[in-house]
Amino acid sequence: MSEASSQWITDEVLSRLKDAPNERVRSISEALVRHLHAFIREIEPTMSEWEAAIGFLTTVGQMCTPERQEFILLSDTLGASMLVDALNYQSAGSETESTVLGPFYVSDTPVFENGVAIDAGMPGVTLYVDGKIVDEFGNPLVGVTIDTRQSDSDGFYDVQRSESLRYLRGRFTSDSNGRFSFWSILPSSYPIPDDGPVGAMLKAQGRHPYRPAHVHFRFFGDEVTPLVTHIFVAGDQYLESDAVFGVKDSLVERFDLHDPAEAPADHPVTSQFAQLKRTFVLKRADR
Amino acid sequence: MSEASSQWITDEVLSRLKDAPNERVRSISEALVRHLHAFIREIEPTMSEWEAAIGFLTTVGQMCTPERQEFILLSDTLGASMLVDALNYQSAGSETESTVLGPFYVSDTPVFENGVAIDAGMPGVTLYVDGKIVDEFGNPLVGVTIDTRQSDSDGFYDVQRSESLRYLRGRFTSDSNGRFSFWSILPSSYPIPDDGPVGAMLKAQGRHPYRPAHVHFRFFGDEVTPLVTHIFVAGDQYLESDAVFGVKDSLVERFDLHDPAEAPADHPVTSQFAQLKRTFVLKRADR
Repeated sequence: MSEASSQWITDEVLSRLKDAPNERVRSISEALVRHLHAFIREIEPTMSEWEAAIGFLTTVGQMCTPERQEFILLSDTLGASMLVDALNYQSAGSETESTVLGPFYVSDTPVFENGVAIDAGMPGVTLYVDGKIVDEFGNPLVGVTIDTRQSDSDGFYDVQRSESLRYLRGRFTSDSNGRFSFWSILPSSYPIPDDGPVGAMLKAQGRHPYRPAHVHFRFFGDEVTPLVTHIFVAGDQYLESDAVFGVKDSLVERFDLHDPAEAPADHPVTSQFAQLKRTFVLKRADR
Repeated sequence: MSEASSQWITDEVLSRLKDAPNERVRSISEALVRHLHAFIREIEPTMSEWEAAIGFLTTVGQMCTPERQEFILLSDTLGASMLVDALNYQSAGSETESTVLGPFYVSDTPVFENGVAIDAGMPGVTLYVDGKIVDEFGNPLVGVTIDTRQSDSDGFYDVQRSESLRYLRGRFTSDSNGRFSFWSILPSSYPIPDDGPVGAMLKAQGRHPYRPAHVHFRFFGDEVTPLVTHIFVAGDQYLESDAVFGVKDSLVERFDLHDPAEAPADHPVTSQFAQLKRTFVLKRADR
C-alpha cells in the first residue's frame, strides 16, 4: 500500500481529536499521532516487528517498581530526558545548569544536619562536599533544601542493594551563609541497570551502559526555582559517552585530594580525602 | 533554549547508534530518535508533563496481563495498528481485506468440528455463520484453520468475565469444499476496556470507546498467507466511528434474519435466526 493510500488513517485519527475539551491535550495528541504515524511510515514495520515493539514497551512498564523506573531509563537513554530538560531550563546567564533526574530518586530520603557523614561506613576514598548556594547576584540563599544521592565505590545505589536501607543519600538545608556540607565517599562510574529491556536495547544498539561518576543534587525551597543537577568527577573515562547524555561541561569538577591537616577542625581525618567545593547559583522563585 | 541550541542532543544520540551491529536495528533506532525528538520539540513539554507521560506509559505496561494487552489498545486507539496493517497488507485485488488483531486474542482457543454451537447457552439472537474459503481463482482452500471470537450480547468477551471459561471463540478447519460453519449469537457493539489509562486517554481526547459489532476471524495454514480480519454487522451505529479505526467497507455484511424453516437440516431451530454467509478470499502461501 502506498503512503497516500494509508493517509486516510492518519486523517481519520486526527479528525477524532477535534472535540478534546482541553486545548493542550488536543495539541499534544495531534502531535503524537502525526509523529508516531510518520515514524511508522518511515520504518514500515512488519507485523512481527510491531508485535516486538508492543512487547518491548510492555516489558519496560512491567519492570518498573518504586525503586526502579525503567521508562525513565528509556527516556534517558534515548536522549529524550535531556531534550525536555534543555527545552525547560533556559539558562539566562550565571545559573547552574540542570541535568537528568535519573531513575533512583526516592521520596523517603533521610534528613541530616550539615557536616555529618552519609556513607554508613561503606568502603571508599573519603569525600568532603563543601557547597554554597547563592542567587544570580552572589547573595547567599538560606534555608534551601538540598537532596543529594550518589553511587558507592562499586557503582551501586542503596536501593539496588537493599529495599529499606538508605545511605549515600540525604537531605540538608543551607545555613545562614548559604552553605551546606557532608562527608561521603568518592562516587564511581557505573552501568545503568542493564538487566532489563533498556539494557537489551543498548546492547542491540552497540552502546555501553556506563555513566561517569557523579553526585546528584536536587535543590528546592520557597525562595528558589527548583533545580535538578549533578556534579561529575573530572577525568572520568565516560565523560564523553554518558549513556544518558547528562554531561555538561559546566557540571564537571575536580575532586582533588587533600592532606588530613586540611580537614575542617570539627571533623579530623587520618588519611588523604577528596574534596568537592562548589557554588551553586539558583534563580530566585518568581513572585 | 532555542531549537538550535538543543540540536546537539539529537546529534549526539544519533552518533551513538552508528555501531549497532544490525542494520535494521540501527535504522529503526535512528528513526525513533529523530521522530521522538521532533515530537518533543513540537510540544515543548514541561517537566511535569513529561513525568505524566512517563507515568502514563508505566501504567499502560502494568495494566497488561495475559488476558488484556493495554499497549495493543493504545496502538489501536492511536491508529498505529491499522497503519501497520495497511503498510503490510497490500491487497492486489480480490483478497479479503485485513484489520486489527485486537487485545482479546488468546492462545488456548478450544477446537471444534464444523456445525457446532460455541455460545455456551449465552442469551442473544441465534446466529449461523456459514463461511467458505477460496483462493484468488475461486478454488476452495481445504484444511485452513479458522480462529474466531466475538463479544456476547452485552458486549463482553469471555476473558473479561472469567479467567478460565472459553466460549464465543473457537478454532475450526475448512472442509473438502473450503467450507466452515458454526452456531453462535449475534455479537454486540461494545466499549473497549476503558477502566485503564487508555480509557482515560480517550476521555481526555473527547472520544467514545465503542467498537461496532463484529466477529473476529484469523485464518492460517500451510497453504495460505495468514489473514487477521473481522466481519462487521451492517447498520451498527459505530461503523463510522470505531474507536480503533478497524472498519473497511468490504468487511461490513448484513446479518439478515431467517425463518426457522431455512435452518440446515442437521440443526433445526425454533425461532428466527441471523445468518452470516461470507466467502473469504485468501492468498496462497508463497512457495
